[in-house]
Amino acid sequence: MYRALDLAKLGIGHTNPNPLVGAVIVKNGAVISEGYHAQYGGPHAEINAFNNATEPVEGATMYVTLEPCSHYGKTPPCANAIVERGIKKVVIAMKDPNPLVEGKGIQILKDAGIEVITGVLEQQAKRLNEVFVKYITTGLPFCLLKTAMTLDGKIAAVSGESKWISDEISRHYVHKLRHQYTAIMVGIGTVLADDPLLTTRLEGSQIRNPVRIVVDTHGRIPLKAKLLQCDNHTKTIVAVTALADQRKLKSIEAAGAEVVVAPIKNNHVDLGYVMQWLGNNKIDSVLLEGGSTLNYAALQEGIVDKVITFVAPKILGGETAKTPIGGTGIPHIQDAILLENMSFVKLYNDLMIEAYIRKEV
Amino acid sequence: MYRALDLAKLGIGHTNPNPLVGAVIVKNGAVISEGYHAQYGGPHAEINAFNNATEPVEGATMYVTLEPCSHYGKTPPCANAIVERGIKKVVIAMKDPNPLVEGKGIQILKDAGIEVITGVLEQQAKRLNEVFVKYITTGLPFCLLKTAMTLDGKIAAVSGESKWISDEISRHYVHKLRHQYTAIMVGIGTVLADDPLLTTRLEGSQIRNPVRIVVDTHGRIPLKAKLLQCDNHTKTIVAVTALADQRKLKSIEAAGAEVVVAPIKNNHVDLGYVMQWLGNNKIDSVLLEGGSTLNYAALQEGIVDKVITFVAPKILGGETAKTPIGGTGIPHIQDAILLENMSFVKLYNDLMIEAYIRKEV
Repeated sequence: MYRALDLAKLGIGHTNPNPLVGAVIVKNGAVISEGYHAQYGGPHAEINAFNNATEPVEGATMYVTLEPCSHYGKTPPCANAIVERGIKKVVIAMKDPNPLVEGKGIQILKDAGIEVITGVLEQQAKRLNEVFVKYITTGLPFCLLKTAMTLDGKIAAVSGESKWISDEISRHYVHKLRHQYTAIMVGIGTVLADDPLLTTRLEGSQIRNPVRIVVDTHGRIPLKAKLLQCDNHTKTIVAVTALADQRKLKSIEAAGAEVVVAPIKNNHVDLGYVMQWLGNNKIDSVLLEGGSTLNYAALQEGIVDKVITFVAPKILGGETAKTPIGGTGIPHIQDAILLENMSFVKLYNDLMIEAYIRKEV
Repeated sequence: MYRALDLAKLGIGHTNPNPLVGAVIVKNGAVISEGYHAQYGGPHAEINAFNNATEPVEGATMYVTLEPCSHYGKTPPCANAIVERGIKKVVIAMKDPNPLVEGKGIQILKDAGIEVITGVLEQQAKRLNEVFVKYITTGLPFCLLKTAMTLDGKIAAVSGESKWISDEISRHYVHKLRHQYTAIMVGIGTVLADDPLLTTRLEGSQIRNPVRIVVDTHGRIPLKAKLLQCDNHTKTIVAVTALADQRKLKSIEAAGAEVVVAPIKNNHVDLGYVMQWLGNNKIDSVLLEGGSTLNYAALQEGIVDKVITFVAPKILGGETAKTPIGGTGIPHIQDAILLENMSFVKLYNDLMIEAYIRKEV
């Protein structure tokens, strides 16, 4: 199953909004085939594993990271294919959270007399497909808030200088996240200050740029901003409110970006509305690289699922220097936003901390 | 040698300003004795190991974490004792940085025909005695800056509320540090806001309270502050400047505290002067638990050697919430204070990050 999970990871950045799935077929104690879901709309992991088999799979055991599907989507159901191929035993990491599957895949296998074991490395499988699980069960994109700060909690010096807090290895990792996430979101403050491009700067022909989303309550984005230099490979969405000038919005659209007019909430773009709109438009995941104001608003609106913080071995000091999360702030410690499953890894010089927002139950 | 280092740690909090030392005696492949330096002024590790031996030590090998001493201090030199006892081989982790020893201990052993090996687990031994190394070579106390913050870099909420950012396990660890360090330093801001006691709250009869130092430029400490309730076991030093009122200083002294009048530097107490004064008064180590203003001043003055930061899995937000290091701040990232040897460990819920200030070479 470890191997199947590793295979599944080969699809990262290419299967959205479909899940990452890996499959391994074992017969008489030897691996006779492997497969993974490589691309959205392409064959599922199980089918790829059948196609890659070096000998007949009849009587073999299949290890698969996700419950085989039972419905006709872009491809015929895998559960039926497994029955037809004469697989004897199926070991599954996690059940499909998709309401269209919901145990039906396992039922087809069991009805055909196949032995089914579930829950093997289930936590790892769920974490691997955290984006898919969130999106398929709620229709909302999974949102990762990424920040980089010094050991004293600064994302910029008192002068506003912010290049660079983290080192090259950490920044390279961020580009891997941009490849992995379907969309990237920033606030208008970041656009005005940095005029970023927000593309994925990695080597390789298969690299995908995320859809770029600017949260811009008053439609202040300059028409010559790099983010409005759109082409077929790099799409930009500008989320505004009725406070924005109509003619400006026409110009933004003329530049090639899509404009989404959101309701106003607390004098700003209603972020919950934007996330719902994105979900409706097949965007399953959002990498939030906001400034401290947008980050605080996103956390307050409850749209954030996970946080990644890079901590650089530097100290800048400064009472007025910006921190990762700004805004008005939470007055009492007992009301703090709580994180869980905090883990960390050293990336060259920097420390990378990952944690999940604890949701009310 | 691992065992010898572990033995040395048993002396933590009791040997200052002497080093932590452990010794193991091995004969015919078996450990026949162990010893450590248990208390300032008490017998050294080597002598304790001789006293604990279950059989004659003649012809045996001694593993010791620090070069045996060669001078008459509070006890006769260990190097001579080793020669007299007929030890055949001595394995040493690190040479003594004490200018009074400086290889002389090793020379005595070699002159007597004893085989000497040095540098075994040297880095571990140096780190264990980082306080001793700094103090014996410079005459200045080793200074550890300790902070506790949320994952978004806040040491308090926007309301000023700061109890508690970190969890109980982290706070227990801080009390272990208070036991380990000879002195603890805070700013007058912390005294006025929290009126802390700054004692070591740990179970056990051998627990020592650190000397408490208040940095108080204008002598503003209230006479009823808990820190001025001194007794034989808890000493307080108030570091002021000529800006303080003379009569107030008399009252502080009458309350039982010691007043040190330091020169003025940047309108504040000259911290470099205070550290030199402390060093002259046998204080080898200072745990700095300042607020963000004192912490920044201490870093700018270059008196800090090491930083420990507890990171709690919480987010508070707030542009005006306090961060670990405040002050005017460093304007350019290229001038940031750099840290090295950053390491980290998870303590229950919190993450503890340790790092050393990179000194100019």
